[in-house]
Amino acid sequence: MNIKQRDFLSTGDFTNEELTALIDLAAKIKAREYTERPLAGRSVALVFFNPSLRTRTSMEIAVYELGGNTTSLDIGKGTWSLEYRENVLMDGDKTEHIKEAARVLSRYVAAIGVRAFPEMHNYAEDMQDAVVRGFARYSDVPVVNLESSRFHPFQALADLMTIREKLGALNHQRVVLSWAYHPKPLPMAVPNSFALITAQFGLDLTIACPPEYDLGNEMMQEINNASAASGGRVALSRDYRKACSGAKIIYAKSWGGKDFYGNPQADIAARQAYQDWRIDEAVMRSTDHGWFMHCLPVRRNVVVTDGVLDGEQSAAIDEAENRLHVQKAVLASIL
Amino acid sequence: MNIKQRDFLSTGDFTNEELTALIDLAAKIKAREYTERPLAGRSVALVFFNPSLRTRTSMEIAVYELGGNTTSLDIGKGTWSLEYRENVLMDGDKTEHIKEAARVLSRYVAAIGVRAFPEMHNYAEDMQDAVVRGFARYSDVPVVNLESSRFHPFQALADLMTIREKLGALNHQRVVLSWAYHPKPLPMAVPNSFALITAQFGLDLTIACPPEYDLGNEMMQEINNASAASGGRVALSRDYRKACSGAKIIYAKSWGGKDFYGNPQADIAARQAYQDWRIDEAVMRSTDHGWFMHCLPVRRNVVVTDGVLDGEQSAAIDEAENRLHVQKAVLASIL
Amino acid sequence: MNIKQRDFLSTGDFTNEELTALIDLAAKIKAREYTERPLAGRSVALVFFNPSLRTRTSMEIAVYELGGNTTSLDIGKGTWSLEYRENVLMDGDKTEHIKEAARVLSRYVAAIGVRAFPEMHNYAEDMQDAVVRGFARYSDVPVVNLESSRFHPFQALADLMTIREKLGALNHQRVVLSWAYHPKPLPMAVPNSFALITAQFGLDLTIACPPEYDLGNEMMQEINNASAASGGRVALSRDYRKACSGAKIIYAKSWGGKDFYGNPQADIAARQAYQDWRIDEAVMRSTDHGWFMHCLPVRRNVVVTDGVLDGEQSAAIDEAENRLHVQKAVLASIL
Repeated sequence: MNIKQRDFLSTGDFTNEELTALIDLAAKIKAREYTERPLAGRSVALVFFNPSLRTRTSMEIAVYELGGNTTSLDIGKGTWSLEYRENVLMDGDKTEHIKEAARVLSRYVAAIGVRAFPEMHNYAEDMQDAVVRGFARYSDVPVVNLESSRFHPFQALADLMTIREKLGALNHQRVVLSWAYHPKPLPMAVPNSFALITAQFGLDLTIACPPEYDLGNEMMQEINNASAASGGRVALSRDYRKACSGAKIIYAKSWGGKDFYGNPQADIAARQAYQDWRIDEAVMRSTDHGWFMHCLPVRRNVVVTDGVLDGEQSAAIDEAENRLHVQKAVLASIL
Repeated sequence: MNIKQRDFLSTGDFTNEELTALIDLAAKIKAREYTERPLAGRSVALVFFNPSLRTRTSMEIAVYELGGNTTSLDIGKGTWSLEYRENVLMDGDKTEHIKEAARVLSRYVAAIGVRAFPEMHNYAEDMQDAVVRGFARYSDVPVVNLESSRFHPFQALADLMTIREKLGALNHQRVVLSWAYHPKPLPMAVPNSFALITAQFGLDLTIACPPEYDLGNEMMQEINNASAASGGRVALSRDYRKACSGAKIIYAKSWGGKDFYGNPQADIAARQAYQDWRIDEAVMRSTDHGWFMHCLPVRRNVVVTDGVLDGEQSAAIDEAENRLHVQKAVLASIL
Repeated sequence: MNIKQRDFLSTGDFTNEELTALIDLAAKIKAREYTERPLAGRSVALVFFNPSLRTRTSMEIAVYELGGNTTSLDIGKGTWSLEYRENVLMDGDKTEHIKEAARVLSRYVAAIGVRAFPEMHNYAEDMQDAVVRGFARYSDVPVVNLESSRFHPFQALADLMTIREKLGALNHQRVVLSWAYHPKPLPMAVPNSFALITAQFGLDLTIACPPEYDLGNEMMQEINNASAASGGRVALSRDYRKACSGAKIIYAKSWGGKDFYGNPQADIAARQAYQDWRIDEAVMRSTDHGWFMHCLPVRRNVVVTDGVLDGEQSAAIDEAENRLHVQKAVLASIL
């Protein structure tokens, strides 16, 4: 595998062989069998348009443990606000264009990490991933996606590594991605990326969600194509309890409805009918010794009960730990 | 002394021998006789619920000079807000529980530093130190207190080191902890920790404050017990000028009244009667070649006059410097 | 040259020989012919009163590449607000004095970088540079200016290095500093410092601006004195297109009018008459194979057209890169 100097924007840009090699390297790192410092003397810029706990911390530590240095920028807080549209007259509130930000940072650093959540005003526009893709276009160094409007590939890679750790093998395992209630509409990057990577690796995936919360058509097309190519299966369910029965992995996550973008009040009204979409002990008992997974942060007793999250079949903290290892694996491989 | 893997939440959790060993090591570090790098390759997370200048800077540098790396999180600014109550339905504004934050950080770092000031709504609740204690409970790695509602142990250790530097010996020295005027009610962690550590080491301590600003009963019990065990003495005074006369150390600090928690306007009204509680040149002349001490930040000409703060008997900058050395000593000893 | 332990507040504090030596070292660093790590084991504090992208990032990386560590403070966001006036009763909203901040940081670090924009209420007061000069006065370690009300010397040094790279020689080259339209009044540190350093080095400088935007009298005096000493020339123009004709360097920048300080609405009203002060392809064609320069951030199609900024004669990204190299050269020389 040679993925030197490539961007890491979505797992869909990489073959199963490349992703497997990355997870293999992450496992070696986790086992403390990797002691190289390929980033010695080099810096990585982390550009945050949105808040972060795990991502900032795990990236700063990933770079440090590879011998390097990070410089973190919180856009809008302590730095300039950034324009990302092309050919625009910049007479509004944006003081700098990502062309300059990306080009300048390229002169200083070996890679740029970017976190840019969707604005959730317009679904089609958000799905362009204009900020992250803009950085990738104008940067001369690799750009890694720390969660964009559309994808969260480090999370997906950590999730897949966690499933492999828990189940041993990946192929044809029964996995449920279950929508869960949450008081506010959240971005779709995590469910998109989780569904995509499990489809890429041929797992038997059921997406359980109310009809208002179906993933986008183009996204489903990409997921179905990946699943067909790998010999997997993708099913849809409106009954999360039934879907979870007999499954090996219950991946809970709340997200907003694409048709409600621009109208959060309508989304909040719609989701009230689904307040019982919560993973509890009864759901977990119905699984095949299933594991509970969540990308965190999670609202206790809203998305999942204390009992499940604190229980022995909860993999949430392992997923978070694996974020560190896969990030090191990706950085060591592309830099 | 072996205090490996212990939390550092209050000096009251440590014996005089342990605290003395920490100050001895800090003095060795200050004298540049310590060049080990016990944190090489390891990271420390610093979690700030409140602003900081000295603490952030001195902790980042302490870790760096011990060979390690810090990752700093400003909760609520650029990161998720954290819930710390148990068994709660998280449907409000808190997006993550400290259980997850502590458990996840434990997978990434060798230690976690936490700063969490009191909310000052309810004294009894604040004195539980729920945030710092919660991190300590759920973390698998040592937690160090960067100032909680109740205690500021690094400050107290730096203060004791400074007194030892200035006076040579500690036992039975006459020390005054004097309340001072300040336009706003401030937390009580510094006076609590200063009184406790001077009591632990048998100094002759007078706490001078208006009756509305007495330290809490439970806190006074702990201070009195420590003083009795060490053969020291604790006195109370309502006349700070009289108390300072003949003293060796004048430790000035403003704090809020415990009975005003939840009602800051009442506190502000009450403190107007004590606007003259300020350390000035006359007070200092009445001492026994006494030293002025303050933890900083300090309001000039409100808490202390320019003349005293800038004078030759001011130890405020030395205290701040010693923060660095004691923090290195503690980290090197517990990690 | 020996400039050890000197502050770096304005290029006007240094001789041409010293500045040339700094640029020579920066060029050596850029060519990767300098591999020393003079900051190993040492820390530099970066104190930001205002937002920053290039400056924070390039300083953090400069210090790292010299072997050292940075600690960054955002004043007012996550740290205490700072008072800088002398002999003041601190009973307002400022919680700490820069005397203490500077003295304490001096105990922790090898140098302090300070960014403090003007408040733009009172021109004469802003031109005192009270914050940066206050840090320099009270600090025991060198202070470097990361852009003050009056000067931005790292930018000026990077600009001069860029001109030398592009033109080969400096003496008597025709350079235009052109005011440009921008919707808001901006600080004057960049035009002040650019005009000063080009005057110090004997370039043939034309300052093109509407009459409301003349630089201050004292500043012009300093610029004219420097130019006279170096055998250069300083001219003033009210017609930026005419001024740019035949020039080798077009340095565009918007700034506020000194007579409008305290009255931004009057400035905004006045500048509407100059909306056409924008560098476009026609202006660039009229030059003598001229280079477009800008310190960034820049508003596209307001200050400069996309075509010029993205064109082959744009030096803006090179200037930004050179910030890193000159900052390393200065830090390596003063520490």
